[in-house]
Amino acid sequence: MSDEILTRERILNVAEEVLRRYGPAKTTVIDVARALNVSHGSVYRHFPSKAALRDAVTERWLVEVSAPLQAVVTEDTPAPERLRRWLKLLISTKHRRAFNDPELFATYMELVKEARTVVKAHVELLAEQAAYIISDGVRRGEFETDDPISAGQAVIDATTRYHNPTHASEWSDPDIDAAFERVWHLILCGLGKRNTQA
Amino acid sequence: MSDEILTRERILNVAEEVLRRYGPAKTTVIDVARALNVSHGSVYRHFPSKAALRDAVTERWLVEVSAPLQAVVTEDTPAPERLRRWLKLLISTKHRRAFNDPELFATYMELVKEARTVVKAHVELLAEQAAYIISDGVRRGEFETDDPISAGQAVIDATTRYHNPTHASEWSDPDIDAAFERVWHLILCGLGKRNTQA
Repeated sequence: MSDEILTRERILNVAEEVLRRYGPAKTTVIDVARALNVSHGSVYRHFPSKAALRDAVTERWLVEVSAPLQAVVTEDTPAPERLRRWLKLLISTKHRRAFNDPELFATYMELVKEARTVVKAHVELLAEQAAYIISDGVRRGEFETDDPISAGQAVIDATTRYHNPTHASEWSDPDIDAAFERVWHLILCGLGKRNTQA
Repeated sequence: MSDEILTRERILNVAEEVLRRYGPAKTTVIDVARALNVSHGSVYRHFPSKAALRDAVTERWLVEVSAPLQAVVTEDTPAPERLRRWLKLLISTKHRRAFNDPELFATYMELVKEARTVVKAHVELLAEQAAYIISDGVRRGEFETDDPISAGQAVIDATTRYHNPTHASEWSDPDIDAAFERVWHLILCGLGKRNTQA
């Protein structure tokens, strides 16, 4: 019953397992404390409410998507190829999660519904990453747009079908890769890169 | 108990009401026949199975979306404005249904899950309508693309967030119109119409 090794990380690991097992609707802080073999007060010291704990679990899941993308954003490579690689990594990360662990994926599908602020921040971060690459592309003379911020948001929205978990049931469609290529071509042209294959 | 006035249209009207009341999972052909005050054999004469009846109800609902759009498609007007008007009509039709009769909208959300072939044909028709406008725009020298068919499919996919019922919960977001405008600008540039407001 010691709190000494009760790190934030350890609570989140166990909370994820408990959420997966009982489902987000039924999981309480007491369930998580019991699985950790600590008092619920010990958990509350790190997370002041059930909502805060759920949000933290959701946030970590989303950071695991956005953090590896950041490495692509700051590469010193042609922006059109970089934007494509960034999008493909975003999409493949989401698809891998949906296919490899459908049960955990379903759990997070439930969690994100309640964590609107956390999800909003995640989508804004993705849009900023896209905007950074587009802006860098304008600087390098590879893209042409007067508003990279709006363009970054538009790129995220226009590719919704391929990375938004709401569409996970479509990700096994045989046409899905070709559909992405068609939208990618439209985006590439839309960003001022004309008659070009990236 | 006469079949004389038992038209396909009348069965579909009543079936829609019964589906709304009992939900798609529970509704049977017998329920529909009872509501029509006819034998279930009379209904089966028009629709050979429960699935055929459900598909026909779903198809009618989707044709009510696509038919008014067709009038815009064949207008003799500048293609960029026409494509925008076509998209805005598609989007406003979907939003109106979601907001005006949420119960019926939810019923159809259930129905489309089971009617994949009907939905696929609907999405293909929408893509063809977009492709027709784009192709006409190329002919008129207003758009520039070598593949209007792919471009039409890309336009439908890129605007998924604004017309696909899966995203209905986002349609009351205060930012949703601005988000559409950003994607529309990207599409317009992507179709070879550069530095232009439509």
